[in-house]
Formats: sequence, structure tokens, C-alpha cells
Amino acid sequence: MQTLLIVGAGLIGSSIARAARHFGAADRILMADQSADVISAIERLGIADAASTEAEAFAAEADIVILCTPPATLAAIAAEVLPHMKSGAVLSDVGSIKQSVCDAVAAILPEGISFVPGHPIAGTEYSGPEAGFATLFKDRWCILTPLDETAPAVKTLTDFWQALGSNVALMTPQRHDLVLATTSHVPHLIAYTLVGTAIDMETVTRKEVVKFSAGGFRDFTRIAASDPVMWRDVFLENREGVLEVLGRFIEDLTAMKKAIRWEEGDVLLKHFTKTRDIRRRIIDAGQDEAAPDFGRSHDAD
Amino acid sequence: MQTLLIVGAGLIGSSIARAARHFGAADRILMADQSADVISAIERLGIADAASTEAEAFAAEADIVILCTPPATLAAIAAEVLPHMKSGAVLSDVGSIKQSVCDAVAAILPEGISFVPGHPIAGTEYSGPEAGFATLFKDRWCILTPLDETAPAVKTLTDFWQALGSNVALMTPQRHDLVLATTSHVPHLIAYTLVGTAIDMETVTRKEVVKFSAGGFRDFTRIAASDPVMWRDVFLENREGVLEVLGRFIEDLTAMKKAIRWEEGDVLLKHFTKTRDIRRRIIDAGQDEAAPDFGRSHDAD
Repeated sequence: MQTLLIVGAGLIGSSIARAARHFGAADRILMADQSADVISAIERLGIADAASTEAEAFAAEADIVILCTPPATLAAIAAEVLPHMKSGAVLSDVGSIKQSVCDAVAAILPEGISFVPGHPIAGTEYSGPEAGFATLFKDRWCILTPLDETAPAVKTLTDFWQALGSNVALMTPQRHDLVLATTSHVPHLIAYTLVGTAIDMETVTRKEVVKFSAGGFRDFTRIAASDPVMWRDVFLENREGVLEVLGRFIEDLTAMKKAIRWEEGDVLLKHFTKTRDIRRRIIDAGQDEAAPDFGRSHDAD
Repeated sequence: MQTLLIVGAGLIGSSIARAARHFGAADRILMADQSADVISAIERLGIADAASTEAEAFAAEADIVILCTPPATLAAIAAEVLPHMKSGAVLSDVGSIKQSVCDAVAAILPEGISFVPGHPIAGTEYSGPEAGFATLFKDRWCILTPLDETAPAVKTLTDFWQALGSNVALMTPQRHDLVLATTSHVPHLIAYTLVGTAIDMETVTRKEVVKFSAGGFRDFTRIAASDPVMWRDVFLENREGVLEVLGRFIEDLTAMKKAIRWEEGDVLLKHFTKTRDIRRRIIDAGQDEAAPDFGRSHDAD
């Protein structure tokens, strides 16, 4: 059992606090956030044992420090917190990109402190401390990208995330960034872009887009409502991975466009049939709802 | 009150049958489907007063005939059914594209029969008679694209869809096809394409795609699990509308790609902030769940 410091009390940070208490994964939960309003919210919500705008003040007490701030801020906050951390403590993070933070923190890591970068694959389209909940990570995967997979701190973090209900996978930061470009970053970029395209169509009104969104568009708007600052950072920091997957996608979309232009129905049908199977696998793996429409509430028959 | 004939007992046709009974929108519900297995399913489910593989047999009895078969089959089925329909009856359909069916049916419409093309903006990723439910159309929009908006048959169909809980909008078929290209057809094409791109990445395994799909990708797989034949027909029949909106999307995506390549964080942030608002409007208009993650079931805190 241990003292946990969470720096950054947004959706993810506040969910870790709630989950750590709910599942008994920490003795004492400290939270830091630069915003005084967020500190008030934490106190009102009662999700931490103590909260402060100064992370340094708590850093010396913590066995585990998890940085939950936007990706671009992680290196600077690590540099502030590390000198205050006690020997034998573990630093981690939850950033959506791993190569950049691994490089930055490895360069400034003091003797006696371990760094085990992490990324829980979980979230919603909402932001802020009110948006968090204790079961956000349950049955989801958390990827750790340690520099040394045999370090004892890797077990500490693995145990911690498993206590919150997560499955844990180890991976190199390079591989993480490519896999996540595919399963998360490019999907978000596409959703953000399509929603923008629809808004900007001068021949179709926004009112029409809103009214008739149940045909498929509304699914994209959920993703495109995600935290803008976080996602800007993701695309800048995982530039290479995103550009690689995006290049593939544009090639494939151009091929589909050509099949439509040339009325190649067989090409379309073959492609659409192939993609059905992956949905089944995701449901079987417990990573999504089998209920129609994600189980969106429908009034009873 | 009236006798209703539904031709084609998939997700939409079987939902209309259930809804018409549930909301008392028809006295007698007849269903036809070319598949003997589907007829057995209808009888087992008890959702029609009578069912047959021969639509012609029922056509003479019906006041309203609604064709619920894939878009490419509509003209041929209309040609089979129309000669048997009684004077004063109304033919309609639920196809996702309206210009092609309007042109085809207008050319063969007998004296005394009205044609009021329709498209309920509702559905799930599942297909077949078991997948339907009575409240599928509740609070969703149904678009009618009549040749003559003042014809009495337009009121008949409007009343029918309102009885099922839908809002009704009138529109020209051309406009319908452009609006739906934006809110439905291109989103589906993009989802189908992205899921294919991810499956085909030789550097990322399918197993990884499945495991880490909760980062956003799983939303796309739901749409990409929709009925392949229906969607092939949509892209072939709404070729022009889809190519127009797709052209815009590819332009916009190329601009986003460039912003990432040149690390223009301000461009990205501005775009991502703009798209958040449209989500709020869709929720306020009652067209989607406000609950995080579409209200996907999370275990209680």
C-alpha cells in the first residue's frame, strides 16, 4: 500500500483518483492541479485526501507520481517534480504519445527514481474533474513502455493498473505510437475533419446536419467533441506515426472513390463484407458493446 | 385506419411492422419477402397478420405499400407490385437514395396510384427481421420527397410516420441525396475505409487493433459493420452526391495533414475547438445521447 500523487485532475487524473480509492489501490491520494478552480472541484467532490496547486509540495511524500496533464506539458512538469521525489519512488504518466515523453524524461531522470511511462486506452468525450468515474479503466488495456522491462517499478505500475481493473501490455514507445496512430490518433483526426467538412458545406445547412445526423454522422461528432488541446498535442508529438497511417488511409480512400466513380460494385461489396468481421472480434474481446447502436438508450418496445 | 403491406422484412421493414402495430398505425399488417426463411422468421416473431414470398398476392388489399428492400432492387419491385395495387392506394419506400427511385417509378406509375418516396433516418448496424424494434423511428426524422407536395397521399404518409413517433420533413430528391451524402453516406464510406486501412497495416497486427480499439477506432467498426449490399447500392446510386462531399473531405484532410507536417498547432486547435459545438446541438436536438460514450454501459462507480 502506498501514497499516490496525481498531477492534473482532468477526466483521466480524476478517474484514477476515484478508481484508486474505489479499488483500494492506494493508502493516501494526493492531487495537484495548476488551476485553483480544479482544486476547489476536487475538494467538493472529495476524491483526494489532500489537494494543492503546488505539485512539488506533495512530491516528497509519494511512492507513485502519475502525471495526467496534456502531452506537451509532461516534460516540463516532470522536470519540476523529479527533484522533490524520494529515492525509490516511481514516476509515470498517462500521455497518448510515448516516444517524446520517454526521450525527454530519460534525459533528466535522477538516480534512484524510476520512470515507467503509461497510457490507459480509455476515455470519453468529456473533460474535467467532474467527468471522471471509478470504472473508466475496467476491462480496458493500459500500455506501459518502460525503458527496462525487468525493472521492479514495472511490476509496481502493473499491479497498480491491474488493481484498477485494467489489463496491462508492455511495448516499446515506438511501437505504441504506431499502434495508437492506427487505433486512436488517425480516427480522431478523421472525425474532427469530417465534422468540419460538414459544417462548412455551403450547400447543406448546419440545421440539416444536426437534424439528419442519426444516419451515421452523429457518431463522428462524439469523437470530434474530445479535448482540443490534448489532441493538438497528440498530432504534433506523434507526427511521424500519424502521417504514416494517414497516408495509407488517403490512398485507400482514393481507391474507394475510384471504385465509386467507375461503378465497380464488386470492389465495394468485397471491401464492406471484410470489415464486418473486425467488429465481432472487438465485441468478443470485451472492448465494446454488442447491443445495437452501442446500447444507446431506446425506449422499450 | 388501413391495410399496410411491407415488402422486404429486414431491420427497417420489420421495425415498421412492429411500430405500426405498437402505435396502432394500421389495422392489418401484411409482409412479403422473397426469402422463405425470412417468412418463417416473421411468422415466428408474430409481427404481421399475414406473410408471403409473393408481394403481388397482397398488393391488391393494401392502402399503403412500403418497399423496404435494398436500393438497387426498388425499381424492379415497384414494377412488379404496381399493376396489382388498387386505385387510390399509395406506394412508398425507405431507400437511402431518392433521385434514382423517383425517376424510375415516375416513369411507370399507373393512373390512380400515388408514389411518395420516403427515407427514415434511423437504423442500427444489425440486419434482418430479428434486429428490428418498435421504437426505432421514435424522435428520428423521416424525409419524404414527393413529386407533388400538395398531393393528398403526402398527408397519408406524413400521418403514418408521425404515428410511429417520427418527425417528417419534405425535400426534393436532389437535395435529399446531397444532405444524406454529408450526414450518412460519406461517414459510412470513411468508416468502411478506415477499418480496412487498419486491418491491412502490415506493421500493426489485427490483434493489436482489436485490443486497443477503445481509443476511438471501435466507434468506426460499428458503422463499418452495416449491411454491405445496402451500402454498395447507396454509393453506386448516389455517385454524384458522394463524390462531391468526398472531394471536399479529401481537400480538408489534406489541409489537416499539411498542418501536422508543418507543426501548425494553432490551425489544429482552432479546428478542433469549432467542431465541439455541433455535438452539443445534436444532443440539444434530441438526436443523440448526452451520456458519455453514447451511454455505453459502464459498471457503477
